[in-house]
Order: sequence, then C-alpha cells, then structure tokens
Amino acid sequence: MTGQPERSAVGSATALVVGTGLIGTSVGLALTAAGWTVWLQDRDTENLRLAGVLGAGHPGLPPSDPTVVLVAVPPAGTARVTLDLQRTYLTSIFSDVASVKSQVKLDVERLGVDMTRFVGGHPLAGRERSGPGAARADLFEGRPWVLTQQTQTSAAALAVMREVVRVCGAQPFLVSAELHDRAVALVSHVPQVLASLTAARLADADPELLELAGQGLRDMTRIADSDPGLWTDIIGANAGPVLAILDSFAGDLDLARAELREVTVARRIGMSKDIDTHQSLSRPVDISPVDISTDLPFMRALIERGNAGHRRLPGKHGAARLEFSVVPVVVPDRPGELARLLVASGDAGVNVEDVSIEHSPGQAVGLVELSVRPEVAGALAQALRTGGWSVHA
Amino acid sequence: MTGQPERSAVGSATALVVGTGLIGTSVGLALTAAGWTVWLQDRDTENLRLAGVLGAGHPGLPPSDPTVVLVAVPPAGTARVTLDLQRTYLTSIFSDVASVKSQVKLDVERLGVDMTRFVGGHPLAGRERSGPGAARADLFEGRPWVLTQQTQTSAAALAVMREVVRVCGAQPFLVSAELHDRAVALVSHVPQVLASLTAARLADADPELLELAGQGLRDMTRIADSDPGLWTDIIGANAGPVLAILDSFAGDLDLARAELREVTVARRIGMSKDIDTHQSLSRPVDISPVDISTDLPFMRALIERGNAGHRRLPGKHGAARLEFSVVPVVVPDRPGELARLLVASGDAGVNVEDVSIEHSPGQAVGLVELSVRPEVAGALAQALRTGGWSVHA
Repeated sequence: MTGQPERSAVGSATALVVGTGLIGTSVGLALTAAGWTVWLQDRDTENLRLAGVLGAGHPGLPPSDPTVVLVAVPPAGTARVTLDLQRTYLTSIFSDVASVKSQVKLDVERLGVDMTRFVGGHPLAGRERSGPGAARADLFEGRPWVLTQQTQTSAAALAVMREVVRVCGAQPFLVSAELHDRAVALVSHVPQVLASLTAARLADADPELLELAGQGLRDMTRIADSDPGLWTDIIGANAGPVLAILDSFAGDLDLARAELREVTVARRIGMSKDIDTHQSLSRPVDISPVDISTDLPFMRALIERGNAGHRRLPGKHGAARLEFSVVPVVVPDRPGELARLLVASGDAGVNVEDVSIEHSPGQAVGLVELSVRPEVAGALAQALRTGGWSVHA
Repeated sequence: MTGQPERSAVGSATALVVGTGLIGTSVGLALTAAGWTVWLQDRDTENLRLAGVLGAGHPGLPPSDPTVVLVAVPPAGTARVTLDLQRTYLTSIFSDVASVKSQVKLDVERLGVDMTRFVGGHPLAGRERSGPGAARADLFEGRPWVLTQQTQTSAAALAVMREVVRVCGAQPFLVSAELHDRAVALVSHVPQVLASLTAARLADADPELLELAGQGLRDMTRIADSDPGLWTDIIGANAGPVLAILDSFAGDLDLARAELREVTVARRIGMSKDIDTHQSLSRPVDISPVDISTDLPFMRALIERGNAGHRRLPGKHGAARLEFSVVPVVVPDRPGELARLLVASGDAGVNVEDVSIEHSPGQAVGLVELSVRPEVAGALAQALRTGGWSVHA
C-alpha cells in the first residue's frame, strides 16, 4: 500500500466506529460526509440511535472486514475492545482515540493485540459538552490529531490512519506515546487540574466576595466546568506526567507562599514601630512612603516567567504567534449592533481575526474588541470613526 | 450635604486627578465628559501631557480647593500623596484607587490623614494594557467600584465619591477594607498568581510539547500576560489574604499529588505482574480491562467542587448567572462572513449575548458560537439554516 496509499484506502473505504460519544460520532459524520461507509457500535443504545439519526453511520456491525476500526470508548476499555474485534476482523486496521497513549500502548501490548495493524491515535478536539448530540463533522478541522507509531506498525496501517485524519480535516502529528503524554499533561491535563483547584476556592466562598469577579476569572476557570468522571479517568491514566508537572508547580507555589509569609511577618513587626512614624510626622517633607513595597523577588520572577510562557503558546493559524492589534469599540447591547460593526469592518476590507466582547454587567453597552493584523488597525479605526463608531484605539 | 448630595456636588464640580495612568486618565475622561473641570498631575510628564491631549483634563494644579482629589498613584505612594495634598487643599474630599484597601487604610491612619474627608476607593476595571493611551471614558461602565468607609468618614465625603462613581457609570459597593481585600484576593490576586504559575510551566517546555495547545490553555493563561512590577506590588500589599487562599489551594494540591503518587506507585507494582496477564490471555472472553481506572476519589471530588465554584460566578448583566444556549455555526475565515452571520441573527430578531470564535489553526474555516437566550436558540438555528448557514446545534 505504498505509492498512493490514500487513494487506495479511499476507494471502497469502510469504517466501524465503536463508541458513539462526541469523538466517535464526529468521526462518523466526517467519514460519511467524505463518502465512506460507516458502521456504528455502542453499548449505549440511546447514543447509538442518535448517532445514526444524525447521519454518522449505520448502527450495526459490518458484514466484512472494514478498512478501519476506530475504538472510541473510554480509555480503560480500549485495549480489550481492540483485542476482541481484531479476532473478528482479521485484516482491518485499528486505532483508538484515548487521550493518554502510553497506558493504551502498554495495555494492548500486554493483551496481545496485533501491533502491525494498530496505530494509537488522539484527535485533540473536544468541547465542554459531550455525547453524540454535540458531535459535528468539522470537529477536527485544523486540529492536531496525534498518531503514535510503534516499530511493528505496518506502513499500510499508518497510511490508512493518515487518510482518516486527512478526511477529518485534522493535522497529523506523528510522535511517540511518551512525548504525547508529556505534551497533553502540560497543555491539557495539568491546566484542567489547576482550573479545578482555582474554581474550588469559589465553591465555599461567601457569595458577596464573588460579586467583584470579572472576565479574567471567568476565562481562567472556564475549563473547570468539565465532566468529573471523564477527567478523573484521563488524569488517572496519565498520572506520571501530570504529577511531574504538578510537583514542579508545587515547588514554585511553596516558594511563593514562603515569600508571602515573610512579608506578612515583617509587616506585623513593622506595625509595632509606631515611634518611627510619629518621629517622621514632625518632618512632613521627608516622609517616605510607608514601606509596604516589600520586595517579592520570587513573585516578580514568577510573573515574568508566566509572561514568557504565555507568549510561547502558538496562535491562530497554527503559525508562530501572530501579534494582533486590538481596535476597541463601544457598542450598544441590542440586536444588530455587533452585526453593523462587523459589516462596517468588512466594508473597510478588513478581516477580523477575533472578536472579544467585554461584558458590562447591568449596563446597556458592551465593549467590543476587534483583533486585526497590526498593519490594518489604523485604517480600520479611522474607517469606523468616520462611520460614527465609538472607537477607543 | 444630605438630601440631594449628588446634585449639589455636580454644580461646579472640580477634580484633581493625581496619577495619569490607565485608571486616573479614564476617570479624568469620564468626569470631563460629564462637565466636571478636571486638573491632572503626574511626575511622569509624558503621561501627563498625553492624558491632557486625550482630553482627560488640564495638566496643572487647581487654583482653589477642588471638590475631590483622586489619588491614582501606585499603592505605596497613596498615603503620602494624600497627606501632602490634604495640607494644600483643606476642604477637598480625597479618595484613592489602590487595589488593596487595608494597607492604604493603615497607612493613611498612621500618617495622620484627616479621615473625615477620606474615602478609600477601588474601581474594578482594568486591561492587560496600561498607561493613559489605554484609557477610555467608559472603562468603568457597569463595573463595580468599591468604596470603603470608616467610622470617621463624613456623609459629605461619601456623597461626593458616590457621585464620582455614578458619573463614571460604575456600580458603588460599600464594604469594609478587610472584606474588599479578601474578595479581590479570591477573584483577582490569587487567579493572577495561579495563571502565572501555570504559564511558567510553559516557559521552559520543549517547543514541540506546545504544538498541541488549544483554546482552553490560552484562556486560562491570558491574565498571565500582566505587568510584573504592578502585580508584584499588588500581591505584596495584599499578602495576608492572598497567602490564606494559596495555603488552602496548596492543601488541595498536596492531596491531589499524594493521590496521583499512589496511583503511579500502584501501577509500577501492577506492571510486574506479567504472569496474571498471560493467564487471562488464555480466557479471552473473560479479559477484564487492564486495571488503569484506579480510583482517584479526591481528584473526582475536586473537579466536582470546581464545577460548583465555576457556576457560582456572576454572569453577564450582573444578575444571577444566566445560562445561555450556544448555536454553533461554521464560517469561512474571510472578511465579511462573521458580519453576514450577525446580520442574519439580527434579521431573525435575536440578540446575540456573546460571540466566541474557535480558531482552526491553518484552516480556512472558523467555528463561531453564538450565545443566546435559551428560548430563542431553536428559532435562531432554524432561521440560520434556512439562510444557508452551516448550523451545528
């Protein structure tokens, strides 16, 4: 199957998708849309039926070996389902979608799965919502889809999975299971734990303390709204890499706390030195600010490291981070205003790369921030102002 | 000045704003827009000049006692500047904008500031950007503005500051300095530290690990892009309340790490039991999933607490959290498409409460999620579909 593997795989391509959750159903939708014949299987008959109605494939088992069997069940069941179905479909290529790859690799090897026709997989697409109802054919458009290849993996198996990824519109990333797991621990699993830890502080807080919350906290805890069962499984399956990063986090946290503790102690001591304060009151011109700007060198370095880390995140278009310019515009919070603004931006020939709306609780206006390429920001601001918009660039 | 304090304060209202950063300049813009006469003062002559050009007021000192002196300098300088100017303007009301209130209260009391005409203040508005160039008259629209009243504070002083808050379009919150500081530690300062700690993990990471990062991590670390000097000062000034919450966070983190450590140890022991695996291979039907679904009861409870905490955050319009429905639409990433979509939504008579754009790195399409009131979501989806839009509800 070298040469033109994609074409040969596409010819009469068929798939069995086991597990009709968000991921399995979305793959079914994408493959069906591309002309594949897709069968669906799930223990949960409600999900199975819904996935079928949505057009993700035919509930049931294929009459002959499908090109590919995609095992989209919870991680703990992946190895066994793969093994069972490899004994039924003797020529099919198998892949999975588990978000932790080392454990699955270990499991399938221990259970005796035929590794020549198994490719570990992980499409990095998801939503806060789950289930087939949240599925969409374009869920994987432009997203990374990791494929983990072992030495035994056949070229044919890899070619078939590359085609599946291509059809789903995703970008294939060929990495080792270990590197994958370290990466997702860093960019996904640890942030999930930290968002939960942060949001947990809010669970028991005095309600009046929460009234001052703003958009920053909402953004930061958005992913804390995730499914506890699913995420406990994921984090448990990637315990090692997650723990390593949390340990490093805890090390920094402990240093930050120690530094803050020193400040609070120093301040308590300082508070008893009333005599000095009274002395300086007799020389008003020389009064120096009360010494509350206690140095926090670790905290400062930490925030600087955070700046640097944040700026390393890849931006839109998967390219090296693009710095967009922001054009802020005040817009009444009523139907059609945002549309009018974007029409005006379009009329100015400007592609708006991102839109952020700052909520104005209880008020009739919102602040819309249009992110655009820096070289067009000035022209856009000018055009909008000419059009009567309240631009605050 | 009881009865109609706002009106009497407005008559020939004048203000001196000391410090022409983001906050001071924005207050100057708002007061000027409302007909106040505003003077501006700053050691930084560049900032002072720019604030004047932007229309925030007149650089210079007022010829007679202004109605209010707003001290908008860094927290450490607040008390001294207030004391100095109280000796110049013997009848003016004074307030500040420091984001930590207990320390300022302590400082002004120790320095001998006249507390009858001092009201602590904190407008909870800000941006990732700072300086007078980022200022806007509407920065405070609908935002909370905390006023901290001491027993000595005169009714007149409070009335003047209530008027300033009203003119700026903000919502006054009258709370104690201590409660304020606990609140901002919870909703602002601790999240800042945690975002920095999270983003710091990315600073030294292997670049290829970052390629898998998605929107969740970007959202979570957005506030990590803040000014190190400013935030070190703020956190230092609120060290006590910040430390208390970080200690509670660290307690949970340590329990989570201990649980993960147990799992990794248990797994290492499990890995050596190869004989059991080979035995079960002889009875394929009975193979149970490899036991990787190790229970993480603490992690599960933590994520559940995070769910609960996140849901307690006030939503848009300052009301109890409104649950919006999301209508997802696939839109080509080119000028005018987003505008067309919002025009179509407006034509359907639907007010779009929020717009979120999911980036599709390297691809020509974006996923736009329109947040709308649940009762109109179905109709909007239907109307958009009829109009040819790719709706994925």
